Amino acid sequence: MQGDLEIALSKLFHSEVATYGAGRTDAGVHALGQVVGCPEAPANLDPLRIRNAVNGICGPSIAATACSEAPEGWHARFSARSRMYVYALLESEVPDPFLSRTTWRRPGRLDLNALNEAAGHLVGEHDFSSFGRVPEPDAPATRTLYELRAVRSGNLVRIRARANAFIQQMVRSLVGTLVEVGESRKSPDSMPGVLEARDRSAAGPVAPPQGLCLVAVEYDEGWSRPVDPID
Amino acid sequence: MQGDLEIALSKLFHSEVATYGAGRTDAGVHALGQVVGCPEAPANLDPLRIRNAVNGICGPSIAATACSEAPEGWHARFSARSRMYVYALLESEVPDPFLSRTTWRRPGRLDLNALNEAAGHLVGEHDFSSFGRVPEPDAPATRTLYELRAVRSGNLVRIRARANAFIQQMVRSLVGTLVEVGESRKSPDSMPGVLEARDRSAAGPVAPPQGLCLVAVEYDEGWSRPVDPID
Repeated sequence: MQGDLEIALSKLFHSEVATYGAGRTDAGVHALGQVVGCPEAPANLDPLRIRNAVNGICGPSIAATACSEAPEGWHARFSARSRMYVYALLESEVPDPFLSRTTWRRPGRLDLNALNEAAGHLVGEHDFSSFGRVPEPDAPATRTLYELRAVRSGNLVRIRARANAFIQQMVRSLVGTLVEVGESRKSPDSMPGVLEARDRSAAGPVAPPQGLCLVAVEYDEGWSRPVDPID
Repeated sequence: MQGDLEIALSKLFHSEVATYGAGRTDAGVHALGQVVGCPEAPANLDPLRIRNAVNGICGPSIAATACSEAPEGWHARFSARSRMYVYALLESEVPDPFLSRTTWRRPGRLDLNALNEAAGHLVGEHDFSSFGRVPEPDAPATRTLYELRAVRSGNLVRIRARANAFIQQMVRSLVGTLVEVGESRKSPDSMPGVLEARDRSAAGPVAPPQGLCLVAVEYDEGWSRPVDPID
């Protein structure tokens, strides 16, 4: 995806360029409100023309919704205050072809009270080593989780996670663990122990990528796209 | 799709079987509430086991939501009273990767008043030769259109079409024509003339398949799935 975008921008700018995304999206993970910086973009091009050209060149799986000139010193990743991800679960005994690419299907009904009680133990500033990995072995794994909460709408359960930053696979590990709680295979009270273990085997499995979506990124100027309570 | 389902059922029943669908879904067209009959299914198999086995064998683009034994003389196609299709349009200047496979994107805002006025001229019993084709050259093209109506929700416009039956490409031709009206390229008052022409060149283009979905089929016993006003 990032490669496709860089190819499109390189064509447009007639020179090779690199881009920087605000949040990670592993293979199979979606993004609605990703923010991408391209420091080498020429200053004399109309941002609207860049947006339209990117949409013309890139395939149907990438869309540029907006494009603008950034202030001096701004960086898509380092200027971001927080990232919001939503993980979507489908409670259904049968598959749904319309949702199979954007949800993780669970056959039973999740206990959202237990799941949200567990989530409450994980909110705050913690060492999240049990829930993911850092790029270098000794890099700090401490992050501040501002929000971790599940809401149900029909047979869709959305788990929203917002943090200053996430370590690798952190949202999917949190979700895999919370789903174990929601399916009564782990107790909400076990969460402090999972955090303290700083060991990935203490947490649940990594949830599959297709349910995850980077929905928005927060900067000093606000969110990269409108964010509402049921997002 | 039908082929995949027949392969799955043939494996399950240990003999080659044919299936009959209630409504047409051309390549690229979706279905939520399709009904499929399989007269050669053995009577001694638990319908729930058939449903689950089909979902286990078929890929992610097919799902069996329910399975039951049919009364003597019932036929998925010939016993159907009416079919309901919904065509989804996305009003957006930029592509939406999440909706590109299930909507037809139009860059501007459609005039729904004009579009629905045109639709009103098309409701009723008419020869729909201008809006599609019949399988044999001299077969009748008269159908009764019970409902044809567009509603907007955010930047999604859904056009719902319900008829006793449809000729080939009829919904997509109706939508292609109504979109021309919604984009002020045809007038609502021209619709009676388009019907009278009985000539496909009188109507608008055939809308692309991906926006179309067979949402439900009506039998004496009711609809094949719950149908609500905004479906």
